[in-house]
Amino acid sequence: MPEVVTPAPKPRTGRTAHGRRRVRSALALAALELFAAQGFEATTVDQIADAAGVGRRTFFRYFRSKEDVVFPGHDERLAEVVELLEGADPAADPLVVLGRTAEVVLEMYLAEPEVSLKRFELTREVSALRDKEIASIDRYQRVFARYLRERYAGEPGGDLRAAVAAAAVVAAHNHVLRQWLKSRGELDAKRLLREAVEQVTAALSDRRPEPSVVEGEDVVVGVVRTSAPAGVVLKQLEDALREIR
Amino acid sequence: MPEVVTPAPKPRTGRTAHGRRRVRSALALAALELFAAQGFEATTVDQIADAAGVGRRTFFRYFRSKEDVVFPGHDERLAEVVELLEGADPAADPLVVLGRTAEVVLEMYLAEPEVSLKRFELTREVSALRDKEIASIDRYQRVFARYLRERYAGEPGGDLRAAVAAAAVVAAHNHVLRQWLKSRGELDAKRLLREAVEQVTAALSDRRPEPSVVEGEDVVVGVVRTSAPAGVVLKQLEDALREIR
Repeated sequence: MPEVVTPAPKPRTGRTAHGRRRVRSALALAALELFAAQGFEATTVDQIADAAGVGRRTFFRYFRSKEDVVFPGHDERLAEVVELLEGADPAADPLVVLGRTAEVVLEMYLAEPEVSLKRFELTREVSALRDKEIASIDRYQRVFARYLRERYAGEPGGDLRAAVAAAAVVAAHNHVLRQWLKSRGELDAKRLLREAVEQVTAALSDRRPEPSVVEGEDVVVGVVRTSAPAGVVLKQLEDALREIR
Repeated sequence: MPEVVTPAPKPRTGRTAHGRRRVRSALALAALELFAAQGFEATTVDQIADAAGVGRRTFFRYFRSKEDVVFPGHDERLAEVVELLEGADPAADPLVVLGRTAEVVLEMYLAEPEVSLKRFELTREVSALRDKEIASIDRYQRVFARYLRERYAGEPGGDLRAAVAAAAVVAAHNHVLRQWLKSRGELDAKRLLREAVEQVTAALSDRRPEPSVVEGEDVVVGVVRTSAPAGVVLKQLEDALREIR
């Protein structure tokens, strides 16, 4: 499925990027507060614009709809992620690239803690918004998977590995984000994500760590004759080899 | 987030379970054909009921809405999965249990190939339905993750491992399902899923696979003495062992 990224309409005011972010953030916060206070359905765009001290037309310069306001800047974020992956060093370990990209996504949440926390509460209450959030997460996952598919192209089982690794990295990201939200922004989310991604990539990477070649290194593999199934022998060998490395 | 499974309204007719499944399937197929022919928005419930040779009221005995018809029996399936996991042997490897459960989910798709294939086409075209499908997949993933969280409770990093493993198994399932759908039902999806899940669980499990002892099975591993780095030797061994299995 091709990824279609439709950018939100660009504001046509002469404001600075910083000013635009402030207006967007104010609108998002006002909307989230209204949604929480009187419900999503009962809230109108006019009320949101009023509460943020701008007009209805300004609202529509920043957002397409009421739903859209819950996930401000989503399309731009996704576009940024696509750009990051397309510009990544082709020689770098793809899972490391993905882990760093997940950090960038996380930072987007951390940069607006108030909006992120309010949204978190809201998506727990309004199932339509939760579904929208899930769909938005899925778009990241598909972008991640596509990047890995390209990097694993030609490898046997590459598509499966790409799908699984993308899902695993996104799951790690979401887990850490959720922990951070539950802690009301107290946890060191970036450190937690780095650790989580390291765990995931260590498990999923079949590239062994670069052989730090030691001159004259010898590897001795013992003979095994056993009635154990190959899978078990393989595991034992892996463990044994890991020890002597 | 607690999992709320709201069962679809039960038909109050005196039909057998088999008869109910047939009516449901007929309604689903009729709906999917109409959606494909004239578009999702333009199709009414009356038209669907007509095409399936039943009345409007019968439609609403089986489905809550037009969207609901695209994913027939979803709530029952999810409930079945919950039941399977709750009834699973507490001594079994949780990832093996999850893999088997993923197979059961896949079988639900395979059991109604026509409906699955039509839905596949439709969800590629109608983004609202795709979002609904994504949300439905997420519900499985959350049920899977909850099961693993309970099984990993008390282990350090257990929640993260649960989230990642659930996502990985669901991704493997979806990958295989997609391959099967793209092959128009030709591929041996069950075998593919078993292999995929084995790969995933081998990577993610820190428990060794249960030795499925085959009486008298012999595995012979050759002696190697080499200056190649351990990683390279391991790769060669892996490949070699895979061949003799």
